Amino acid sequence: VGVIKAVISRILPEAKIIDICHEVKPQDILEAALLLKSSYRYFPSGTVHLAVVDPGVGSKRRKILVKTRNYFFVAPDNGVLSLTLKEERPLKIIEIINEKYFLRPVSSSFHARDIFAPVASFVSKGEPLNKFGRVIKSFKELQMPKVEMRSDSLSGEIIYIDRFGNLVSNIDGDNLKHFIKNRKFEILIGKKCIDRISRTYAEAAPLNALALMGSFNYLEVAVNCGSAKDYFAAKKGDRIMIKRMEC
Amino acid sequence: VGVIKAVISRILPEAKIIDICHEVKPQDILEAALLLKSSYRYFPSGTVHLAVVDPGVGSKRRKILVKTRNYFFVAPDNGVLSLTLKEERPLKIIEIINEKYFLRPVSSSFHARDIFAPVASFVSKGEPLNKFGRVIKSFKELQMPKVEMRSDSLSGEIIYIDRFGNLVSNIDGDNLKHFIKNRKFEILIGKKCIDRISRTYAEAAPLNALALMGSFNYLEVAVNCGSAKDYFAAKKGDRIMIKRMEC
Amino acid sequence: VGVIKAVISRILPEAKIIDICHEVKPQDILEAALLLKSSYRYFPSGTVHLAVVDPGVGSKRRKILVKTRNYFFVAPDNGVLSLTLKEERPLKIIEIINEKYFLRPVSSSFHARDIFAPVASFVSKGEPLNKFGRVIKSFKELQMPKVEMRSDSLSGEIIYIDRFGNLVSNIDGDNLKHFIKNRKFEILIGKKCIDRISRTYAEAAPLNALALMGSFNYLEVAVNCGSAKDYFAAKKGDRIMIKRMEC
Repeated sequence: VGVIKAVISRILPEAKIIDICHEVKPQDILEAALLLKSSYRYFPSGTVHLAVVDPGVGSKRRKILVKTRNYFFVAPDNGVLSLTLKEERPLKIIEIINEKYFLRPVSSSFHARDIFAPVASFVSKGEPLNKFGRVIKSFKELQMPKVEMRSDSLSGEIIYIDRFGNLVSNIDGDNLKHFIKNRKFEILIGKKCIDRISRTYAEAAPLNALALMGSFNYLEVAVNCGSAKDYFAAKKGDRIMIKRMEC
Repeated sequence: VGVIKAVISRILPEAKIIDICHEVKPQDILEAALLLKSSYRYFPSGTVHLAVVDPGVGSKRRKILVKTRNYFFVAPDNGVLSLTLKEERPLKIIEIINEKYFLRPVSSSFHARDIFAPVASFVSKGEPLNKFGRVIKSFKELQMPKVEMRSDSLSGEIIYIDRFGNLVSNIDGDNLKHFIKNRKFEILIGKKCIDRISRTYAEAAPLNALALMGSFNYLEVAVNCGSAKDYFAAKKGDRIMIKRMEC
Repeated sequence: VGVIKAVISRILPEAKIIDICHEVKPQDILEAALLLKSSYRYFPSGTVHLAVVDPGVGSKRRKILVKTRNYFFVAPDNGVLSLTLKEERPLKIIEIINEKYFLRPVSSSFHARDIFAPVASFVSKGEPLNKFGRVIKSFKELQMPKVEMRSDSLSGEIIYIDRFGNLVSNIDGDNLKHFIKNRKFEILIGKKCIDRISRTYAEAAPLNALALMGSFNYLEVAVNCGSAKDYFAAKKGDRIMIKRMEC
């Protein structure tokens, strides 16, 4: 990361660089996509977002530069931008080709340093976008794990666990509201269950579990002053199910 | 953290942001209070310190803004400032109420982003303090684990373990000096003992234990080129006792 | 780290600070030396590099300031600069002595804050180098684990494992090329073997092992979309051997 910032500040000494996160699980494109989606909109208009989780580095995966109404995005075309670009529609997508903007020699294992960082710097400097490559029409979409909807249940899974041990599911707020309406329900993880949606962590007694709509706008399961990951012995991919109550 | 900096730089693009630490054990107010106390005074005068460890987020705990002779502090009123404010007396304490300075809508789980970061930014921008809320007289004090003092012993505990595995106790320098004077003593952890206070890590042979007054100004136990945490199989809350020797 | 930046920005408010890494294994001078060597050249000319991994803090190890053609380096004289200074020859080496530039009182356990950070700030501010101490002729060299070369084999070891679990050896690119030429070979780690050098991670099938010349310019063993550390149950110091094939 230091090297990437060094590269940026050689090209654009006045650059303001803000780190979103460098602790994405290695190669976990979905985790990076979620973090970007929940963060990008808080940045000043005109920000260039550099998002590199890149298991395919050096292979033929494309490299893209995307302009939206408020931002620019520079990334490998592997889906890392796709959750964000659902909300913030792309106005122009460029496949990055022009080697003039790359650090030479280009290594085959560290494109963040040799390609993405210098391209992002030149974009930030105001270089016309068309100079970086050719206009393309589409970008790779990420397959989100699907939520199964039945008449009496919603079944999703844990897609991210944060450093507090909060379990983030793929069940989004709108889905959930529509399913629950004013009926009784229970949320099941493993053999444990939670019967309401809290507004704050502190609504549960200390060391007790609760569910809430987290800052990703997905259903989260947490433990007040504790770790839901440890409490439920949970891991990514585990089921979270919401069932309507019969009574 | 990235989001918080993004929020700050939208309100105050020229802000200089310095991270003290983002690795405080989740919900550990005491650890955060210690780190702040040992760091704040190195910052330039006029710095706005933003300190958010906030297990009560969204509940009724107050949010405060404190002015001292040299600094401003913005934090939940849960004790995180209290060790610092013992040294750096508060000149004015404001309960933060005015929603005009908040990001809307205010989430119930991420006040660092929605309340504390924007308030800190506007304070840094020079907004008069009274505009943020109402003047109050007190702030929540943190209960530090007490040191037991007897005629022939001092008994404290481990309150923080740093990334090097150094064990920081709650026995402060003045206490210790007064107790020891020129007499012989031994420091006991578990069944092991150390018989003097070193000035540097290197005074012990490699992989040997030593005690010294650390940068928190509390008695620390360390292992030269090693980890005292591993060496003593120590954890937070473990006893550290100093006994006078009879001979 | 926050405190160090605070100290710097009190002395030089306009300083641009870029973190290379703060996750070096405690006391691991070799790891820090490798990271510095692979990073320094990407920084703008004139950068002051502050490199503190300092198991001998407070003891009699010297503190040095080095000027090269493009950079300045400030560090304890324990070898942390030595891999870098093999590539970037020192033009002047100063032993740091002048206490005028130190933070007072100087603690015996945190010279990064009290000595190295303020010295680096004053160097960056343009203070003449001779003012910091006296010119010396040499600096401490780090002993790199040696590569054993035989007529039919090269035997090195793992010297660094990165956060992706990639295993970095001490077998450098030139050595390797010279040994391999166009002959067949195999790379042995534990009981497993790899029979070619890949250009990218993606050349191996997912979860398969591969070898490549990494960004340190040393032979690395990796697992595509996985962790070589886990795959090989490898740890620092483990052997990596390259054997010529007889056939």
